[in-house]
Amino acid sequence: MTRTRVGIINVTGYIGVDLARILFRHPQVEVACVTGRSAAGSRLAGVFPHLNAADMVISPELDVPVDVVFSAMPHKASAEACEPLVAEGLRVIDVSADFRLKSRDEYESWYGVQHPCPHLLASAVYGLPEIHRNDIRNARLVANPGCYPTGALLALAPALAAGAVEGDIIIDSKSGVSGAGRSLTLNTHFAECNESVSAYAVEGHRHMPEIRQECRLLSDKVTELLFLPHLIPMSRGILSSCYAKASASWLGGCSRPRAALLDMYREFYKDSPFVRVVDLPPATKHVWGSNYCHVYPTFDERTGRLLVISAIDNLVRGGAGEAVQNMNLMLGFDETCGLEALPVFP
Amino acid sequence: MTRTRVGIINVTGYIGVDLARILFRHPQVEVACVTGRSAAGSRLAGVFPHLNAADMVISPELDVPVDVVFSAMPHKASAEACEPLVAEGLRVIDVSADFRLKSRDEYESWYGVQHPCPHLLASAVYGLPEIHRNDIRNARLVANPGCYPTGALLALAPALAAGAVEGDIIIDSKSGVSGAGRSLTLNTHFAECNESVSAYAVEGHRHMPEIRQECRLLSDKVTELLFLPHLIPMSRGILSSCYAKASASWLGGCSRPRAALLDMYREFYKDSPFVRVVDLPPATKHVWGSNYCHVYPTFDERTGRLLVISAIDNLVRGGAGEAVQNMNLMLGFDETCGLEALPVFP
Amino acid sequence: MTRTRVGIINVTGYIGVDLARILFRHPQVEVACVTGRSAAGSRLAGVFPHLNAADMVISPELDVPVDVVFSAMPHKASAEACEPLVAEGLRVIDVSADFRLKSRDEYESWYGVQHPCPHLLASAVYGLPEIHRNDIRNARLVANPGCYPTGALLALAPALAAGAVEGDIIIDSKSGVSGAGRSLTLNTHFAECNESVSAYAVEGHRHMPEIRQECRLLSDKVTELLFLPHLIPMSRGILSSCYAKASASWLGGCSRPRAALLDMYREFYKDSPFVRVVDLPPATKHVWGSNYCHVYPTFDERTGRLLVISAIDNLVRGGAGEAVQNMNLMLGFDETCGLEALPVFP
Amino acid sequence: MTRTRVGIINVTGYIGVDLARILFRHPQVEVACVTGRSAAGSRLAGVFPHLNAADMVISPELDVPVDVVFSAMPHKASAEACEPLVAEGLRVIDVSADFRLKSRDEYESWYGVQHPCPHLLASAVYGLPEIHRNDIRNARLVANPGCYPTGALLALAPALAAGAVEGDIIIDSKSGVSGAGRSLTLNTHFAECNESVSAYAVEGHRHMPEIRQECRLLSDKVTELLFLPHLIPMSRGILSSCYAKASASWLGGCSRPRAALLDMYREFYKDSPFVRVVDLPPATKHVWGSNYCHVYPTFDERTGRLLVISAIDNLVRGGAGEAVQNMNLMLGFDETCGLEALPVFP
Repeated sequence: MTRTRVGIINVTGYIGVDLARILFRHPQVEVACVTGRSAAGSRLAGVFPHLNAADMVISPELDVPVDVVFSAMPHKASAEACEPLVAEGLRVIDVSADFRLKSRDEYESWYGVQHPCPHLLASAVYGLPEIHRNDIRNARLVANPGCYPTGALLALAPALAAGAVEGDIIIDSKSGVSGAGRSLTLNTHFAECNESVSAYAVEGHRHMPEIRQECRLLSDKVTELLFLPHLIPMSRGILSSCYAKASASWLGGCSRPRAALLDMYREFYKDSPFVRVVDLPPATKHVWGSNYCHVYPTFDERTGRLLVISAIDNLVRGGAGEAVQNMNLMLGFDETCGLEALPVFP
Repeated sequence: MTRTRVGIINVTGYIGVDLARILFRHPQVEVACVTGRSAAGSRLAGVFPHLNAADMVISPELDVPVDVVFSAMPHKASAEACEPLVAEGLRVIDVSADFRLKSRDEYESWYGVQHPCPHLLASAVYGLPEIHRNDIRNARLVANPGCYPTGALLALAPALAAGAVEGDIIIDSKSGVSGAGRSLTLNTHFAECNESVSAYAVEGHRHMPEIRQECRLLSDKVTELLFLPHLIPMSRGILSSCYAKASASWLGGCSRPRAALLDMYREFYKDSPFVRVVDLPPATKHVWGSNYCHVYPTFDERTGRLLVISAIDNLVRGGAGEAVQNMNLMLGFDETCGLEALPVFP
Repeated sequence: MTRTRVGIINVTGYIGVDLARILFRHPQVEVACVTGRSAAGSRLAGVFPHLNAADMVISPELDVPVDVVFSAMPHKASAEACEPLVAEGLRVIDVSADFRLKSRDEYESWYGVQHPCPHLLASAVYGLPEIHRNDIRNARLVANPGCYPTGALLALAPALAAGAVEGDIIIDSKSGVSGAGRSLTLNTHFAECNESVSAYAVEGHRHMPEIRQECRLLSDKVTELLFLPHLIPMSRGILSSCYAKASASWLGGCSRPRAALLDMYREFYKDSPFVRVVDLPPATKHVWGSNYCHVYPTFDERTGRLLVISAIDNLVRGGAGEAVQNMNLMLGFDETCGLEALPVFP
Repeated sequence: MTRTRVGIINVTGYIGVDLARILFRHPQVEVACVTGRSAAGSRLAGVFPHLNAADMVISPELDVPVDVVFSAMPHKASAEACEPLVAEGLRVIDVSADFRLKSRDEYESWYGVQHPCPHLLASAVYGLPEIHRNDIRNARLVANPGCYPTGALLALAPALAAGAVEGDIIIDSKSGVSGAGRSLTLNTHFAECNESVSAYAVEGHRHMPEIRQECRLLSDKVTELLFLPHLIPMSRGILSSCYAKASASWLGGCSRPRAALLDMYREFYKDSPFVRVVDLPPATKHVWGSNYCHVYPTFDERTGRLLVISAIDNLVRGGAGEAVQNMNLMLGFDETCGLEALPVFP
């Protein structure tokens, strides 16, 4: 069997290197090239000793033929890197934010840069498989979702699709520190974020418009979002607690809202191997190191609100694993191929 | 100068032992007696080596004369222990939940036990100094607030008192593990809660009715509460993110809601030395080991919601320190006496 | 292809459940039965939600035919459970301590119980593949090493086998909390062991005689061991820093001791896929969640001591993964089968 | 009463800011000036929100009269800053390494710079109060010890002074991340050092010569040191496990070495309020946030080695608290003044 040849652009960030970890063990692909600017010429295991047993040299550029490319560049640079690859006819999965927002204006306003190739926005597919599985199968360019949007949307999609919520939605998310990337900041210095929790991006986080775009695609009853991310002293994981008013129409037709919710969620995800609807509140540790998402929907009688909690590993399900899931769909592999690893607990 | 003699009933829990830590260094008091059932007869430093330099023997019962008693017993047992002490005319500060809820029915429904001395409920004062300072000064029996209610109420009180919010309020709190106490459970086993975050008490936490009672005392515009606590992998600290609809009346009178909020909060707390209104989102580490509370109020334009975030050390400001603050008020000491220690960072 | 049927006795401890995690995804085996006393009748995913996607019911006893059994019972009970299975001719891998020490007296003195089946001690093979690979291939009963001995022996074996050290050896090990098991104790309560490090078993740990036995088998120049374990605030991982006097004979023949050591170690492990000799000091995070061991040997000129540092994941390489590696050898599978997962970083 | 006026040079590092935290509450001093280069002109609470309740403006230079200066500058720059202050007759406590080593050559070889004012080396006093208390009382310039040396020397001093050990000494230390300072590095990035432990400075750490100098002053039986520091995922604390051969002379005169050791240590520290000789192995959490050091001496029968374990808070006892203890001695205050705070547990 010939393996599909893949390349990873910018392997030296956390999503990039987790792509390497997963793809090195993927039975259908061969990692033909990994690139990194500052580390070019070094061995990957020199930069990341955990890859000692699957080492290769970091290239300055994609310099060998490949069939599929993952770009883990920062935004803007990523679109610039992807454009010629798409033009060449390669399959491209971009883990940056560049092709997630359909509105060029919204992109430029939230990211503060001009979009390098807005003509690709229409054909790029938002790579959340549980919502856009068929489009992903036929895509040339997939925009891998942000980590927070993955958790929030998997929590909310069934209820939105059923018209079960209305009004504004509050999403209170708690993320491990790896979500902030590998750049050095005081906020991610161990001594400062250990034994502490804080909110950030209180005035508006870039993942908000992305969540809002997809929510509105699923339901026109959603007005606005208040999304508040928090930094938690752990390396990996996002827990999202989502609060949304039950719609009058849905609630009117329900005698037992909690049970109805559970059924609605199980039905929605019945063909989605990585989303597990659970009947006890999830912990991020239940999905650590895996591509699984645990979703717990419930109903608060006192306030008439749906409360849905989801747990993901932000670097796998919210990043590298999701990107490989997208690749599997694009290439006709089994959706779970190379992603079967169960979460590591404790 | 004669020092006031104090006793601590049940010193072996986390609030009890933090009371000991603080009171051993309080310049106006002498710790005359500490009690503990299973550890009676042991030296305190045998059970808690951090108290090596201020050791004493743990008594089975309060067996020497004291002027003030702190009860850190579990609920029900605490009320039983406090009743005769109050009858004797001692000043009593109960850190259990027994005298917090004014409604006996509500207490009995949430705690699942009969109240041992409901006749004391009317005269017991809810010990949140920033709201009930004058009543505390004259109280014989103070009900020390729960840790979550302390954080949530300090976040919400100014807005509630000003009639600035209406409808339901969502309180999403994140607590360190010491909040769960010293009892052994899988949920607090290091290997299971480390590198993880989860919600709990999703169907309703016992601190909810306590928060609701005080919110409604402050404002009749509040309908209901959705309070969701989360367990965070840290030892100490509670961060509460509170979401509440701005009232039409308040918003109508405001040209710059954010600035107006900040002014409202600063005015409300101007004579409260332990509450600091801050202009950047707080982290629990900013108050670690201290009696300070940092409060950050802001306004979300998109949803028209107030968002207020507070940070406390759950064992000090949400427990032992608050109890000492109450004692200071009851005895006419300076409110900050023995509580001046600045937070330990990092 | 027919898969080999395996059973896990006592799946509810950390080694047991990590065996389940690995074996559920092992391509050559089928997990036919998992047992657990108190949880019998429950679904495994009810007790361990991370196994949601690979669930099965926990049996009270091994009640279906299997070819291979892993026993993760506590010591003594494990030997009692293994004895009849060995007699039946099954392949048995015991992860308890019962068959590790060749001397019945030493076992009984360190564990304080009578050995249930001392007649099996002679034929049981100490399951450290890098030292006893051939014996393991032919074994019916394998004693899976302790977690500390795995790390310490992989650090020391090449130097011992070469006669490069003499006198006493000091092993200072740092373990994550999962090494203490899933039983509830104050020492493993999050609030007490977080943000702290301490030594324990200062008077002598049960893994010491096990390390000493294997060291002496490798070299008669070793006199005694001082093994001191420490508890570290992390879930998984053991780092062992080993200090041993260079032998006069070895040092005499060496012009460049550091380089010579590195060569010696690389040669010793050249056919061992899971041991990686590294040229920078390892971190336990470099092997997290994997069966790899990183070993770093160096020489301290000032004291004439070898200093060797090893890093393992205590539950995989020091437990479940090592047991599967042993199974692979016993059944003639590729040694790495089912264990290829790369470490998860960060 | 007139308070002594103190200044802190470079308040923006961890030792500097912990000096501020302690000195702001010291009853005998007034913090007249704090300096910081990049943050000059900012409010201290803007940089360090935990100091919100005790704020002041950061100056570019010492610009008001003071009686005592603490320098928390990096090495070399610190000596340059201290020299003129000493010349002016101020009392100076330098927390950098510049005046710790008596040998200029050794300093220049380990730190790789020329010493700016070697003429001050002879009169500078090594500020470990338990060893040099009387010299400190009369010093103009005190060299505050390094954090590792503080822990190691408090562990070893009694045995060294009694001639109870001989040969080489192995010191295996485990430090929290704040010991690495506030500069940003990958090693201190939360995602990389959380859930991990590693050794560093394997070829030789700058604190080694400092420990060796003081050990040799105490005993001429010590030959060499092997000091190996480890990075532990916690913010504060150092645990040092020290291994040293019992001297033949001491062991010969001892019928019960463990009891004799305990007596020897208790006697040595009987007038030292901050060192507590404990009879169970200490945890760093037992001294968290305080100036206390817990020391546990024992004897290993199998190897004939003394094993002494000490626990400190690296920023207080190993830094700012120790510096204030030195100031207290220099100014004739009570040695414990301003340092009475008990450790914060849990």
